[in-house]
Amino acid sequence: MKIGKATVPRTAICTSDAHTIVVRGRDLSKELIGKVSFTEHFFLLLVGRMPSAGEAAVLNATLVAIAEHGLVPSVQAARMTFAAAPDAMQGAVAAGVLGSGSVILGASETAGRLFEQIDRAAAQHGGDLQKAAQGVVAALRAERKAIPGYGHPLHKARDPRVAKLFEVSLKAGGGQRFVKIAEAVEAVIPDIVGKDLRLNVSAAIPAVLLGVGFPVNALKGVPMLARTASLIAHLSEELTDPIGFALSYQATREYEYTGAVPDGFVAGGHS
Amino acid sequence: MKIGKATVPRTAICTSDAHTIVVRGRDLSKELIGKVSFTEHFFLLLVGRMPSAGEAAVLNATLVAIAEHGLVPSVQAARMTFAAAPDAMQGAVAAGVLGSGSVILGASETAGRLFEQIDRAAAQHGGDLQKAAQGVVAALRAERKAIPGYGHPLHKARDPRVAKLFEVSLKAGGGQRFVKIAEAVEAVIPDIVGKDLRLNVSAAIPAVLLGVGFPVNALKGVPMLARTASLIAHLSEELTDPIGFALSYQATREYEYTGAVPDGFVAGGHS
Amino acid sequence: MKIGKATVPRTAICTSDAHTIVVRGRDLSKELIGKVSFTEHFFLLLVGRMPSAGEAAVLNATLVAIAEHGLVPSVQAARMTFAAAPDAMQGAVAAGVLGSGSVILGASETAGRLFEQIDRAAAQHGGDLQKAAQGVVAALRAERKAIPGYGHPLHKARDPRVAKLFEVSLKAGGGQRFVKIAEAVEAVIPDIVGKDLRLNVSAAIPAVLLGVGFPVNALKGVPMLARTASLIAHLSEELTDPIGFALSYQATREYEYTGAVPDGFVAGGHS
Amino acid sequence: MKIGKATVPRTAICTSDAHTIVVRGRDLSKELIGKVSFTEHFFLLLVGRMPSAGEAAVLNATLVAIAEHGLVPSVQAARMTFAAAPDAMQGAVAAGVLGSGSVILGASETAGRLFEQIDRAAAQHGGDLQKAAQGVVAALRAERKAIPGYGHPLHKARDPRVAKLFEVSLKAGGGQRFVKIAEAVEAVIPDIVGKDLRLNVSAAIPAVLLGVGFPVNALKGVPMLARTASLIAHLSEELTDPIGFALSYQATREYEYTGAVPDGFVAGGHS
Repeated sequence: MKIGKATVPRTAICTSDAHTIVVRGRDLSKELIGKVSFTEHFFLLLVGRMPSAGEAAVLNATLVAIAEHGLVPSVQAARMTFAAAPDAMQGAVAAGVLGSGSVILGASETAGRLFEQIDRAAAQHGGDLQKAAQGVVAALRAERKAIPGYGHPLHKARDPRVAKLFEVSLKAGGGQRFVKIAEAVEAVIPDIVGKDLRLNVSAAIPAVLLGVGFPVNALKGVPMLARTASLIAHLSEELTDPIGFALSYQATREYEYTGAVPDGFVAGGHS
Repeated sequence: MKIGKATVPRTAICTSDAHTIVVRGRDLSKELIGKVSFTEHFFLLLVGRMPSAGEAAVLNATLVAIAEHGLVPSVQAARMTFAAAPDAMQGAVAAGVLGSGSVILGASETAGRLFEQIDRAAAQHGGDLQKAAQGVVAALRAERKAIPGYGHPLHKARDPRVAKLFEVSLKAGGGQRFVKIAEAVEAVIPDIVGKDLRLNVSAAIPAVLLGVGFPVNALKGVPMLARTASLIAHLSEELTDPIGFALSYQATREYEYTGAVPDGFVAGGHS
Repeated sequence: MKIGKATVPRTAICTSDAHTIVVRGRDLSKELIGKVSFTEHFFLLLVGRMPSAGEAAVLNATLVAIAEHGLVPSVQAARMTFAAAPDAMQGAVAAGVLGSGSVILGASETAGRLFEQIDRAAAQHGGDLQKAAQGVVAALRAERKAIPGYGHPLHKARDPRVAKLFEVSLKAGGGQRFVKIAEAVEAVIPDIVGKDLRLNVSAAIPAVLLGVGFPVNALKGVPMLARTASLIAHLSEELTDPIGFALSYQATREYEYTGAVPDGFVAGGHS
Repeated sequence: MKIGKATVPRTAICTSDAHTIVVRGRDLSKELIGKVSFTEHFFLLLVGRMPSAGEAAVLNATLVAIAEHGLVPSVQAARMTFAAAPDAMQGAVAAGVLGSGSVILGASETAGRLFEQIDRAAAQHGGDLQKAAQGVVAALRAERKAIPGYGHPLHKARDPRVAKLFEVSLKAGGGQRFVKIAEAVEAVIPDIVGKDLRLNVSAAIPAVLLGVGFPVNALKGVPMLARTASLIAHLSEELTDPIGFALSYQATREYEYTGAVPDGFVAGGHS
């Protein structure tokens, strides 16, 4: 069944023949393997050109920053899945990747879009970022939406990763405009939201990546790639020190059943 | 419901408090972000220690080698999934990751296990790798199993990535024992299998990684992490230049329906 | 890490002790197994009460209608995934389920929400459904959005499943209000959109299900459950008559590489 | 890239033109919608013929029996995933489906294969099922493998669903040979394993389904389809009564960090 119009698939990423694999215009074996880092290769695949040293440094820093934060929901889901289906590590990785949604890891992308919006709005405020931030954040609140990338359940003061990412960006010569926008948002939040929500890592990531030309469309890919590294490490640990079922046991050691019961059944609330 | 024995989850990968995130014994913000590359971080997460420069070079080379090979089945599945569900990039990445199975990308791990088996068997042959390879490969064939990591649908001569990976390993000072085992397997295949199946990238990856202390249990993680980078690039391209439905259209432009039809229905074989 | 407020999980769906499994207030073994059909059980799980005979008939009809439509993108993705990873049928099913997104199978839910909106808007038009539909559809077009559930790449005349679902609904005594709304939308489309987009199965499903008290929030579950049945059948066929790699081969037998190439590489456009 | 030999995809499940959708030789709109139940349709899709009333009754009973068992690991994984990524219900369903592995829901298939092995072995024991079971189970134990479908973490006496499924099978006229084999296995276990592991639902399902001609290859599909229904119900509940993050919070309210810490960090063991 034909859905849509284009019928001949096309791509600008890779082609190959029996002797050569071409990736973004380069001979993979001769020009890339052994010559570029995986992080540079990721940038090349995504953006279509090699990153500068500074761009690679910033991308490395964000990938390192967001990769691991312990037994978070997506890691738990992956380890439970692997315990139930140890024959398929890829299934457990996929289960973890599926937790990269709008609420958890997707905030990098939505924060990036917010910053771009403020960037564009600044022109209407004579370039005043704070005023532009005020307008955009207030509009967001009026729609009762969360401010993506601000506030953290654990790190009530500023997330410790934020200052470090900003430092790396500065040292690497990355553009600082989106860092300033991110800080402008942080500054206007208390008055508008009534709470002191500080910049977290999900806002710092787009702030520094947009400064090195990383495409906003691909921002979500950064936490996803980083978390995949973490998921693989956790699943490797699960093979030798399994906790998938222990996590599941703990999760419902205590729970409340709020439905009806048949005659004679004594509701326990413990499974 | 309690399944299994351990009831308190434990992990050696990460812990944190409000001010510090500890990854493998290091302060993430102070000791890792901005100081280590993503590839070094992946090694640290997985193995529990920082890699040497040579180890990082080999790991980088394998990740770069296996990341991208065009519109392969897992990329097609991911792009079709994204076309159907553009609201969820993570779902499309997951669909692609799910294609990292025993037949396609999982061969890295099974080849690694094969090499370890030959490594152990060599002792019984006075250290003769070729004889050890002969025994193990012949046994595999007797069970009618494929030799993982040998032969390639496109690269009939040796996969161009193989020589490059071996060169990187040598230059980086990686152990060469598993490279020799991989070549011993290639040498014995024609006599045993009756076909000249050459080393492909999925055998070269464990050959060089086992030489730098990479855990065999985590070998499958290398193609999975690498392909995630590629999947993100393809999905980013899909956003601006969509081909998901074109791929699907092409895939069944011609097909054969082998079932029955109701009276009066003229079987077309074209959907 | 504590995310959110509720800390004791609760559910109204199921509880159990060593002797009894309670589902929605009923003893699973004594009151459900052997007494209710799987379709009735699905309704019970979801809605919390047993369906009437008419409600079950309508739900059955929708599940049967949407289960199978040949080698569609999600089936292709699943069969490719199974070919690459035959060790994990669940991974291939998951890859197929991930294609139930906003563009393809999710239209049932978005169409359902559209009908509810028209239902509410009708009050402002003295109950005139056509006028209410006009307003809502025109607003949708003004935002350049598609009308979910109308038009079909293959079935240019009305999708053959639509009339049948409406007939089942009528015979089963299901409420006809949302069927009328669905037809009102079809009637106003040509003038507003300039094309004669006919009701397809994704609009007919909510039209008949909302008439039997099916929750709009769970509408997306109907195509997902139905397609899971189809995916399992296709993967079972894949085990004995594999086509996963053939589909992938066909999909890119012809393709266009639009990127650069290294010196000396002759771009083929065939992989 | 061409992988494998077959290049023209073929299928016996479905074909269609602009007016008719053919499923397993029948006109979907005229012969199936409104005429067959979803369970009969699933059987038809999978087996290629309509089930008898007895066959449909047995299949219904197994789907109802295995659909729901509370906040089990796969449901937890799905609800956590939905909390993190509420934009994509299909992703949460997929995360839950991925937990249908060899350890948890896949036991239906492995138990079915075990029963077929005993069925074949019986000929060598003059048809004595108990002796055949003894041989096969003892061989399994010698390889230190678990007996799939026997023992249950909660239901130490026989799983309450088992007797009911056997009763349904008998009443529906299903073949009893595999029920007898399942009971023979239960009888020989105490002597061989040293523990009284009773038949659980995962052994009862193949015991009754193999008696109505259900293909052993598709056995895993039964728990997968059934659990999909349950997952959809849980995710619908999650929309109105969210517990995904509460489950995750509980799962690691207590945990042990077994790795090193930087100087000055006081390990808490609570995240």
